[in-house]
Amino acid sequence: MGELHRVKIAVIGLGRMGKRHVHTLLNRVPRAEVVAVCSTEPHEVAWAEENGEYKEFGIAVYNSYDQTIAHPGLQAVWISTSTDVHASQTLAAVEKGLHVLCEKPLSTDLEEAQSVVDAANKRKNLKVMAGFSRRFDASYRDASMKIAKDNAIGKPFLVRSNTCDLLDHTGFFVRYARRNGGIFVDCAIHDIDLALWFLENPVPKACWACGTLQHHPELKELSDVDNAVGTVEFWGGKIAYFYCSRTQAHGHDVCTEITGQHGKIMVNVIPRSNNVVVADYQGLRHEVQPEYWERFEDAFATEAREFIDSIVNNTPVPLPLEGGLKVMQIGRALQDALLSSEVIKFSQDGVRL
Amino acid sequence: MGELHRVKIAVIGLGRMGKRHVHTLLNRVPRAEVVAVCSTEPHEVAWAEENGEYKEFGIAVYNSYDQTIAHPGLQAVWISTSTDVHASQTLAAVEKGLHVLCEKPLSTDLEEAQSVVDAANKRKNLKVMAGFSRRFDASYRDASMKIAKDNAIGKPFLVRSNTCDLLDHTGFFVRYARRNGGIFVDCAIHDIDLALWFLENPVPKACWACGTLQHHPELKELSDVDNAVGTVEFWGGKIAYFYCSRTQAHGHDVCTEITGQHGKIMVNVIPRSNNVVVADYQGLRHEVQPEYWERFEDAFATEAREFIDSIVNNTPVPLPLEGGLKVMQIGRALQDALLSSEVIKFSQDGVRL
Amino acid sequence: MGELHRVKIAVIGLGRMGKRHVHTLLNRVPRAEVVAVCSTEPHEVAWAEENGEYKEFGIAVYNSYDQTIAHPGLQAVWISTSTDVHASQTLAAVEKGLHVLCEKPLSTDLEEAQSVVDAANKRKNLKVMAGFSRRFDASYRDASMKIAKDNAIGKPFLVRSNTCDLLDHTGFFVRYARRNGGIFVDCAIHDIDLALWFLENPVPKACWACGTLQHHPELKELSDVDNAVGTVEFWGGKIAYFYCSRTQAHGHDVCTEITGQHGKIMVNVIPRSNNVVVADYQGLRHEVQPEYWERFEDAFATEAREFIDSIVNNTPVPLPLEGGLKVMQIGRALQDALLSSEVIKFSQDGVRL
Amino acid sequence: MGELHRVKIAVIGLGRMGKRHVHTLLNRVPRAEVVAVCSTEPHEVAWAEENGEYKEFGIAVYNSYDQTIAHPGLQAVWISTSTDVHASQTLAAVEKGLHVLCEKPLSTDLEEAQSVVDAANKRKNLKVMAGFSRRFDASYRDASMKIAKDNAIGKPFLVRSNTCDLLDHTGFFVRYARRNGGIFVDCAIHDIDLALWFLENPVPKACWACGTLQHHPELKELSDVDNAVGTVEFWGGKIAYFYCSRTQAHGHDVCTEITGQHGKIMVNVIPRSNNVVVADYQGLRHEVQPEYWERFEDAFATEAREFIDSIVNNTPVPLPLEGGLKVMQIGRALQDALLSSEVIKFSQDGVRL
Repeated sequence: MGELHRVKIAVIGLGRMGKRHVHTLLNRVPRAEVVAVCSTEPHEVAWAEENGEYKEFGIAVYNSYDQTIAHPGLQAVWISTSTDVHASQTLAAVEKGLHVLCEKPLSTDLEEAQSVVDAANKRKNLKVMAGFSRRFDASYRDASMKIAKDNAIGKPFLVRSNTCDLLDHTGFFVRYARRNGGIFVDCAIHDIDLALWFLENPVPKACWACGTLQHHPELKELSDVDNAVGTVEFWGGKIAYFYCSRTQAHGHDVCTEITGQHGKIMVNVIPRSNNVVVADYQGLRHEVQPEYWERFEDAFATEAREFIDSIVNNTPVPLPLEGGLKVMQIGRALQDALLSSEVIKFSQDGVRL
Repeated sequence: MGELHRVKIAVIGLGRMGKRHVHTLLNRVPRAEVVAVCSTEPHEVAWAEENGEYKEFGIAVYNSYDQTIAHPGLQAVWISTSTDVHASQTLAAVEKGLHVLCEKPLSTDLEEAQSVVDAANKRKNLKVMAGFSRRFDASYRDASMKIAKDNAIGKPFLVRSNTCDLLDHTGFFVRYARRNGGIFVDCAIHDIDLALWFLENPVPKACWACGTLQHHPELKELSDVDNAVGTVEFWGGKIAYFYCSRTQAHGHDVCTEITGQHGKIMVNVIPRSNNVVVADYQGLRHEVQPEYWERFEDAFATEAREFIDSIVNNTPVPLPLEGGLKVMQIGRALQDALLSSEVIKFSQDGVRL
Repeated sequence: MGELHRVKIAVIGLGRMGKRHVHTLLNRVPRAEVVAVCSTEPHEVAWAEENGEYKEFGIAVYNSYDQTIAHPGLQAVWISTSTDVHASQTLAAVEKGLHVLCEKPLSTDLEEAQSVVDAANKRKNLKVMAGFSRRFDASYRDASMKIAKDNAIGKPFLVRSNTCDLLDHTGFFVRYARRNGGIFVDCAIHDIDLALWFLENPVPKACWACGTLQHHPELKELSDVDNAVGTVEFWGGKIAYFYCSRTQAHGHDVCTEITGQHGKIMVNVIPRSNNVVVADYQGLRHEVQPEYWERFEDAFATEAREFIDSIVNNTPVPLPLEGGLKVMQIGRALQDALLSSEVIKFSQDGVRL
Repeated sequence: MGELHRVKIAVIGLGRMGKRHVHTLLNRVPRAEVVAVCSTEPHEVAWAEENGEYKEFGIAVYNSYDQTIAHPGLQAVWISTSTDVHASQTLAAVEKGLHVLCEKPLSTDLEEAQSVVDAANKRKNLKVMAGFSRRFDASYRDASMKIAKDNAIGKPFLVRSNTCDLLDHTGFFVRYARRNGGIFVDCAIHDIDLALWFLENPVPKACWACGTLQHHPELKELSDVDNAVGTVEFWGGKIAYFYCSRTQAHGHDVCTEITGQHGKIMVNVIPRSNNVVVADYQGLRHEVQPEYWERFEDAFATEAREFIDSIVNNTPVPLPLEGGLKVMQIGRALQDALLSSEVIKFSQDGVRL
């Protein structure tokens, strides 16, 4: 196939998202070649070994991370495992000289996350990136262009952002929640990242949060809630506020509003599955995406493509790895505010007081 | 005109809203007869004395409140003056045996407001009501019916509500702000009232707020802001959060979302002036109401009609006067949280700690 | 009541719309005084005689049109009877020296309609108007202003307009259809009027139509259909096309799009009952007005007010009576095209060939 | 790369769409391998020869169709040339034993189109398909599922469908129009196809059309217009009507409404570029896709994928080739009606009278 050199990559983790990442790489990233997948779950390994498409594309299936990263010729990994092993797996891959795209967050432990950033910074030739997928979404990018290039709304000072998941009746979510760090760390992390993006990296001053349990009483023992509202005040008169929910009836509803001095940009305030509206005895209605996958499938493809391109072209990764640390610091502060009912404050340098 | 007996009413205050209330009564409340108007502003008095329509309808013009409430045969007053005289004027009218529709709030001072409620309670034959106009809006009423009667969303536990005014370039707002009690007392009061309505009168547990000054630096000396976000946690796992703004570019934007266990009701999340959309080189666009008047004109007419009907039929006023006290208590707490940056807490009986 | 002189008016016909017109005049037109109503239907007369509000407002109830127009002091009539007596009743009222607001159309017979126009033209002191209520709707007026004053879309050359009624399960519609002149005369007449308005009174060149029977087979013997599409080509490169339906599932759906050389104005393309959206397991939905009353209630009030004002101020009626003739000519041509399956053509003078 | 066998395909024509088809195949169809491209335009050939991506992927560049289809190992062609050579190129490829995906329409000449169908039918082992891309759009497919599987609207009887292009200021369109067969053949062809799909292959009974020239007077000598409305009545009480425009100000606006006895499905009635809304002094607005590419990019990828899959799996092509003939017959009849101002009629067998 001509002069084409494709980046040999392995996908780590074959849960819902891991499978989707394989799908994205196979179908939408022609400069990537998926050479291996890895899971420690026997049923996932078995599923992958029987998968006709994986065979067709010649993908090796591993049940050991160490063996995977030793796959001959491997150049990169896409880590899509549970949060608690993100940091160690990233470190091991960096150690091996592999490029890494790691699902957010690097770690719910700030020190551990910092250690990953430090390790990556020592290997400047490696591309190491945390997957804040919304940064690659066409609508958010359009919003950013309108604000930064077109000055469409003047100086932004306020962000409202929601991440609201469809209520899960399968028990999957509650199991998953055990290792995710809490609603503000797991669910609001993208919203916090968007707020930092659109407010131009402001420094937090104070935050407060409260929550409620409406559908998943099992979360109580995890010191977590299934619906929460949090507000962050930044130094310099900027504000961001968030609503996260695990219990929406109508679908996956993610919206963001950025208010500036001369206008406001609304992203996905009315969520829609597609272009179809049904008119019947109930009036007019449309469906909503059930999951973030349907909302952000294109963004994941763009993310994967830009990550692979940064390897092929040896250019900086599209998102600096450090960004995730600040997001996590704010997420943790909101989670602590939620649990303590107290205001969490920060110095003008962003040091938590 | 047959057996028709019309309620003789005076409108007190001829600012923007006072004039509109006269208009509403003349044009949309056939069982009311506007016999007098009153203003202490000489230019408003002069304007009213020259007003052809007022002459046509035989409306007397006063520059003294005491003279107005002594107008022969007068039965009721609609008080539309500045907040600082609401309580004293209401008390004087009640003293005179007049029915009173008083613009919200009765007072920014909770004790004074309580004294008005007490006075009204002693005169059960009088109809005394505070004007929470959104309670009369067709969309909010439809939302309430859907929730309470149709069980459309299950048990409500979360309210998001905004009151965002168009930026005022005339200086009117800043002058007006001197006597309004602050952004959460003046601007969020309707949102707090809606939250109490839709969450079925929950008891506040804690609240926090923060704000920013974007366009009106003059507010700083009033200890006020022009944009603010506030959150109220209620006992029993309910939450309300609010955004108030004085500086919107696109119009008067008032929206409310009520989330329940099985769904959400959205009121006016996409504000529209009318049914017109323009498609041109910029895409598709529609205008937004410039002021709450355009959004709530029908609600004011319903409010006036139902108040007058309660007099004609000697039935209870559509809204109990006491409701306003609880709203004000929360508004004041949010304003204090805004100024102190501290969480304000309440006991399970709703007593501020 | 001061110097106020109110126009004494009678409402003729107490069907659905007649009752609503009384309601409008009582509640929203303070310069009108309803002194009488008239119906030839015994059950409507009985209903009116028992009506408490009619008694309260001192409204006389007649079962004879002749007696009604002889009511002492009567100045005007609002004719809301079936189309077949519009012309004769208007002529009789004009003969008596009464102002007339007559529901559209004056007649389904063009000659008869012309005779009414001729009679009115001889009595220039009388205000005689046909009720094309959409001309008084705020959104259509805003569209007109945007086009004519703001030049928002350049020169208009195309109109699409729909009138789609909610399916009637009561049998009312089929009974009513016996005397209404057919779907293009009864249902499309407002759309044709809008097309003439927005296209600046173009001259028809050719038209064609087709239809179908989906729910009301009884219409077959009336040579009518319950869904129809018609297109009118005008001299000068302008086009209007219409869809009329009697069988919508979702509500009364009336929309109009006006396309010009530089843009398009859309009026009510997404119909909405109010500002409420429900989010639940089905997605997002809103209701649609069930009837034209809910859509055009304000327009009827404006129409009544402007008609009464033209009497009080002795100014021209807001709509020239002649306009209805041209509308009817086109409606008849479309109905004939529907029945014949042939193109109906017109000369450059608008004479049907 | 494992057992993967990829279909070797050439893209014929390197105009706007040809380039996009190469892009789609390279990026979104992993089972296809683009081995060659072909253009007879020297500047396109030169552009392709310099194209870094084409080199990277090892794509041969030809300036002769005959040489292209003789490319060693070639299995399929995607014909994206001007309509006048579609038929001859398809025939030549079929002759060579190649699979063919040909842009619609096969020919503006019905007999020629029939000859292609006949030739393809003789080579059952070959996959020959005309590219009606909207059949692969997720929203249209969802509409189809809702109608056929969910019975969401009862039996469909009416289709309204528009294809409205953004006004072209570059002169490209007018040049392109010389060979496209007229507005109903070129622009409405997708709408006609959708009508046949959603109305379940009805037989035409009569049609009429009219048009106007608003921006492109050059079309007059081509006997064409730049805006047109056409209506098709089908035997059995079904109707479709179309609006086509070359002169929209706001973007590429393609919408379809399907009305059934119990409801209506609306596809893209409010076109949107993405999820972004801007609120500023003008109100609320969003952008619209400039071209059908932005609206249908995903549909083209699905089309390509399903075509390639039908080759790989040796299954029937997703769309029968014959469908295009009926669409073309109706498009031609509408175009003739437009030119003659007369109704075109068909027998109950669909034979034009």
